[in-house]
Amino acid sequence: HVNPVIDIIKNLKVAEDRKIWINVDGLHQTELIESLGQVFGVHPLVLEDILDTTQRPKTESYDDYIYITIRTMFYERLENAVDSDQISIILGNNFILSFQEMETDLFKKIRQRMERPAGNIRKKGVDYLTYSLIDSIVDNYYLLLEDIGEEIERLEDELIKEPAPATLQSIHELKREMIILRRSLWPLREIIASLQRDESGLIRESTGIYLRDLYDHSIQVIETVETYREMLSGMLDLYISTVSNRMNEVMKVLTIIATIFIPLTFIAGIYGMNFEYMPELKWEWGYPAVMIFMATISVIMLYYFKKKTWL
Amino acid sequence: HVNPVIDIIKNLKVAEDRKIWINVDGLHQTELIESLGQVFGVHPLVLEDILDTTQRPKTESYDDYIYITIRTMFYERLENAVDSDQISIILGNNFILSFQEMETDLFKKIRQRMERPAGNIRKKGVDYLTYSLIDSIVDNYYLLLEDIGEEIERLEDELIKEPAPATLQSIHELKREMIILRRSLWPLREIIASLQRDESGLIRESTGIYLRDLYDHSIQVIETVETYREMLSGMLDLYISTVSNRMNEVMKVLTIIATIFIPLTFIAGIYGMNFEYMPELKWEWGYPAVMIFMATISVIMLYYFKKKTWL
Amino acid sequence: HVNPVIDIIKNLKVAEDRKIWINVDGLHQTELIESLGQVFGVHPLVLEDILDTTQRPKTESYDDYIYITIRTMFYERLENAVDSDQISIILGNNFILSFQEMETDLFKKIRQRMERPAGNIRKKGVDYLTYSLIDSIVDNYYLLLEDIGEEIERLEDELIKEPAPATLQSIHELKREMIILRRSLWPLREIIASLQRDESGLIRESTGIYLRDLYDHSIQVIETVETYREMLSGMLDLYISTVSNRMNEVMKVLTIIATIFIPLTFIAGIYGMNFEYMPELKWEWGYPAVMIFMATISVIMLYYFKKKTWL
Amino acid sequence: HVNPVIDIIKNLKVAEDRKIWINVDGLHQTELIESLGQVFGVHPLVLEDILDTTQRPKTESYDDYIYITIRTMFYERLENAVDSDQISIILGNNFILSFQEMETDLFKKIRQRMERPAGNIRKKGVDYLTYSLIDSIVDNYYLLLEDIGEEIERLEDELIKEPAPATLQSIHELKREMIILRRSLWPLREIIASLQRDESGLIRESTGIYLRDLYDHSIQVIETVETYREMLSGMLDLYISTVSNRMNEVMKVLTIIATIFIPLTFIAGIYGMNFEYMPELKWEWGYPAVMIFMATISVIMLYYFKKKTWL
Amino acid sequence: HVNPVIDIIKNLKVAEDRKIWINVDGLHQTELIESLGQVFGVHPLVLEDILDTTQRPKTESYDDYIYITIRTMFYERLENAVDSDQISIILGNNFILSFQEMETDLFKKIRQRMERPAGNIRKKGVDYLTYSLIDSIVDNYYLLLEDIGEEIERLEDELIKEPAPATLQSIHELKREMIILRRSLWPLREIIASLQRDESGLIRESTGIYLRDLYDHSIQVIETVETYREMLSGMLDLYISTVSNRMNEVMKVLTIIATIFIPLTFIAGIYGMNFEYMPELKWEWGYPAVMIFMATISVIMLYYFKKKTWL
Repeated sequence: HVNPVIDIIKNLKVAEDRKIWINVDGLHQTELIESLGQVFGVHPLVLEDILDTTQRPKTESYDDYIYITIRTMFYERLENAVDSDQISIILGNNFILSFQEMETDLFKKIRQRMERPAGNIRKKGVDYLTYSLIDSIVDNYYLLLEDIGEEIERLEDELIKEPAPATLQSIHELKREMIILRRSLWPLREIIASLQRDESGLIRESTGIYLRDLYDHSIQVIETVETYREMLSGMLDLYISTVSNRMNEVMKVLTIIATIFIPLTFIAGIYGMNFEYMPELKWEWGYPAVMIFMATISVIMLYYFKKKTWL
Repeated sequence: HVNPVIDIIKNLKVAEDRKIWINVDGLHQTELIESLGQVFGVHPLVLEDILDTTQRPKTESYDDYIYITIRTMFYERLENAVDSDQISIILGNNFILSFQEMETDLFKKIRQRMERPAGNIRKKGVDYLTYSLIDSIVDNYYLLLEDIGEEIERLEDELIKEPAPATLQSIHELKREMIILRRSLWPLREIIASLQRDESGLIRESTGIYLRDLYDHSIQVIETVETYREMLSGMLDLYISTVSNRMNEVMKVLTIIATIFIPLTFIAGIYGMNFEYMPELKWEWGYPAVMIFMATISVIMLYYFKKKTWL
Repeated sequence: HVNPVIDIIKNLKVAEDRKIWINVDGLHQTELIESLGQVFGVHPLVLEDILDTTQRPKTESYDDYIYITIRTMFYERLENAVDSDQISIILGNNFILSFQEMETDLFKKIRQRMERPAGNIRKKGVDYLTYSLIDSIVDNYYLLLEDIGEEIERLEDELIKEPAPATLQSIHELKREMIILRRSLWPLREIIASLQRDESGLIRESTGIYLRDLYDHSIQVIETVETYREMLSGMLDLYISTVSNRMNEVMKVLTIIATIFIPLTFIAGIYGMNFEYMPELKWEWGYPAVMIFMATISVIMLYYFKKKTWL
Repeated sequence: HVNPVIDIIKNLKVAEDRKIWINVDGLHQTELIESLGQVFGVHPLVLEDILDTTQRPKTESYDDYIYITIRTMFYERLENAVDSDQISIILGNNFILSFQEMETDLFKKIRQRMERPAGNIRKKGVDYLTYSLIDSIVDNYYLLLEDIGEEIERLEDELIKEPAPATLQSIHELKREMIILRRSLWPLREIIASLQRDESGLIRESTGIYLRDLYDHSIQVIETVETYREMLSGMLDLYISTVSNRMNEVMKVLTIIATIFIPLTFIAGIYGMNFEYMPELKWEWGYPAVMIFMATISVIMLYYFKKKTWL
Repeated sequence: HVNPVIDIIKNLKVAEDRKIWINVDGLHQTELIESLGQVFGVHPLVLEDILDTTQRPKTESYDDYIYITIRTMFYERLENAVDSDQISIILGNNFILSFQEMETDLFKKIRQRMERPAGNIRKKGVDYLTYSLIDSIVDNYYLLLEDIGEEIERLEDELIKEPAPATLQSIHELKREMIILRRSLWPLREIIASLQRDESGLIRESTGIYLRDLYDHSIQVIETVETYREMLSGMLDLYISTVSNRMNEVMKVLTIIATIFIPLTFIAGIYGMNFEYMPELKWEWGYPAVMIFMATISVIMLYYFKKKTWL
């Protein structure tokens, strides 16, 4: 069932001045991908890398094409987790092959812009299209970080108002997501930088200015991730300090209650003893005297706590 | 309503040896800004960047102008927060365009110096004026850091005298502000460094010596921020240690009280039992003997605590 | 008993266009290894390094061979520890000598691929074989990290459900293994990079593309180790916070119980005193009145705890 | 009142082969400093920098002189704080101008060495004198660090013997001083390095060997500061651990006492109840039986604590 | 008394093709050292550095000799401290001067190897001897780290089995020793690297291969120190967590005992009150009913603790 598609592509390729963009959603169609590779002369090692979805983002220059593999990420707010999707792009002289692990809306806007006949994007060549594809991936990171930023703000509010173990768990999870995000963003920056320095001639100078802009965006995304990481670390520290503070407060209440009543209970215990010869028990004013003595002790204790600023 | 302004500018521009500085306060007048861009031949990407107020500070060289975008910051002491304002500068051959997100007093002094006919600043050209604009932004950081420095000192005093959870909260907030400050200061330093290395010819050698000075100032600002960060981290550690110390003290008081009175209460409890055959209860000296025994235990306990330096 | 083996090798070496791979399992046969060294003209310092199993992974270029020493690692899940095994490779013009500290299955697959007469590996020369050997070592690290990744996930689950001191111990042990792993992985990356830059002519250009792939894999392994380290650090922090949380909870229960019952016990103690003149004791409603008073105090206390969100 | 001094200096300057060193103590004589600047042709920006005592240490090359500004520090043991003093040096072809913020003994020894007619220092020229001035500043750092080293040792002893909150406060203060010290030492090293690389011809090759030595000293000073910082961080950690340990010990004492006596008090409370039908109370051996029972419980408890190594 | 020694040395020096190694143990013989300096034409600054035993390890190239100063260290297990000893080496064209702060066995083996007439070391020249001297210093670091490694293992065992404050103290001390070790090892590596790059011609190419080996060893020593530091940091964290865990356990025992017995004691206290009108006291089944009620409360409490996994 692959052949007819491949045949059409072969025919398209014959017309030399045509520019072709082929996008493959889903990597299960290995046969189709291999045929595509053969038609466009892609090295078997590259095809292997495209099909292996645990690739580190990277770019590799070959004789007549550039191979780029990037990771795009989606934030699942309910699970407080980040999902990722590998996207591979092969930029040739007048063709682009793009491979997505899953079917997403990522390139939808680009497709819409290309359908308009007067679209700028149609005129600007395959290197500009490559830029547009990577740009839409970087934009997706912006959206992702905006969502995470909102979540961080929500957690920060929670932390100040009423910190719960679940807050701690969420901060910890977000921090781990930041580690994962960073791990795929640093190579992304390297990829864009290496496209800027490209010497193969596949990327024209006029596209360079857009790549410089893209590079700035990728740095901004990385800096945001680093800022979030530091903020989350600060929040963890604050959480621990807050728990420590609360424990201190709990301890103070316990200590105040215990320190006032334990001595008083002891005094009551003394006059609860059953010795036959306890003269105080027979005094008419014994009971009120003991009560006043106890009240005095309480007042002294409370004054002592007041001075220690425990109250 | 824009046209008359633009027409005047066009007329000014015709006279080639004139130097023009146009400052736009507020970025809502997009139409005006676009017209300005057309008059001075600014790339559409640059105009987009000027209108987007979430830009990372950066500088970009174009064929006949340099585009600079910087962030200036204001410290709101009441909210213990830092507000920021994006400023874009376009330095051409004999013109400067500056765009401010909000109307501020930042360039007021420069305007006053320019109004004086004998002013040095009028003679020195647009590159010197660019230096002056950036210099006033860096000076503003100095003021900001002075305010924050005072706040840090106040918090440090509070920390030693009477640490409260609110102190912790303030330290945490200031630390976060430092992260944000740093994030806009590092690129500022890069911007000044890249202006120093400028090869476009738009910045004359005589301005270089001022830029070197400015570069030193930017480093000093960054180092101050780093120092403040370390100081705030140290204060957080101190806070936690102090809370820990206080808890220790609270625990000691509780333990001393409990350890002395719990055994005594037990002894009183023994002689409060109602057994018929308890010979001690009948002894004439039973009561004073028990009291002396209790006093002895207390003294031994207090001596033990003294030896352990808990008192 | 060594001579016959050495003689065969000498004979093989005479035929100049033959490619030889000799693998030595176990380093106790020092005599054999020295003879091999003499036959292939290996420097005595290199032979010393091969026999010393505490070498840091490194590569050294000599006039007509490259000496590589790497460390492969095995994860013992039961002991939660990582064992290591030193592998030395000498790549000459048309020979490879490999030395393993212990007999392992590491090169089994390569041997199987070589036994097949049509095997690709037989045609590609000794530099490709060197790549294959190192590749199998790097692949082994992948397996190791997968095992450790599973263990980390198991510990994370344990941490959330029911953290025990044993969990802490395991996290600590894994973190230490990460330090050891990293220590042998960073030089491994350097080795591959220096093979890529090789100028001796022993590594052909066609093998370079495979080394680039291998280099990417080595970076990915290192990044995984770094990610695991950060995750384990995060888990340690979470453990401490969780223990702190639990202690807080324990303290609250103690404080609530003590704060409610210590004052009540004191009141009961008062009416347990044996004074002759205590009018309350004679009142008919004394007992129920005291009971109601006690209940009131309890309710007030519980309301206070509710307000403090301790309940 | 300035003129006569300036006139003398002018006259001195006429004699071309004379070498002049002018040292100004205190920066309040702005008029004198400005006159000096005019006589020796110093740039107004440099004069401004000399008078601004919050300068970051730096060196700047001008056409015919080098401007150096350094910070010297003094340790006030009583206040446990570090005071600083800005020193500016202008090295010309055959003159040195030095400016000190306050009058100190720093250059006293150099002055004494210069007064001796046979002094080596008189022959070696103004670049060697500049070296001597900076050397005396670096030597002053050695003295400062020796004082701080002694203070650290004293605090470490205190920490082991009897840690008090004041110890914590002192460690924290010293750590902050280290941050400040480091901030002025790193640029000092840069200054010496840039003097070594000097291309203006004002520093002769024969002085280079002394600057190399000075550079080594500056590195040693920086490393000492870094070592002290790490030691102080370690001491803070140790302090927290020690406090934690002590709290643990306090808790154990409380728990042992409470765990033994609370159950015993309960048993005593039982037989203190006033029920009419309590057969035990009438038994002849009831009292001793209860006492033996209580002793048994105590022994069991103590054995349990022994086994848990709490005793 | 120095002269005769110096005379012999002078005579030896006349014979140009002789190689001389002079080793001075102890730096108190300043007169001898100065005479030696004069005979071999050593710069006065170098002699000063040799006599100053607080030098940072470094190497300096002079016109016809290389000056090297290194620090060797000895681990005193009893005091858990590291002692250090400064060693200076001057490598000339055909002579080596070595100066040791104290008399040690460090160079004993080299002396023995040189006494054997057929010794390899005698033939290989003074640069190889320099290598041998530094090699014996690096080997000494290996021994030192082996001792420390054993101590770390011992402490780790102690930490798991029975952590005591003394364990904490030892870990802290070892960590500080690591800071000191590192401080002298980093420059050692630099020294060896700079000897490898030597351009003076004093170090022949044939010695380069040995220096490369030595460089690897120095890196391995540094990495071991870094690994130990990280392990010790991990152990400190583990210690704090363990203490925290134990405190948690102590708190649980206290809370369980207090939470069960405080309410029971309160109930006993109620029926110990002396009100005249307490109907329960007259009931025949009052006493057993209260006992059963108390038992029920205990069982409920124990079940609650079981559910909370506190038991």
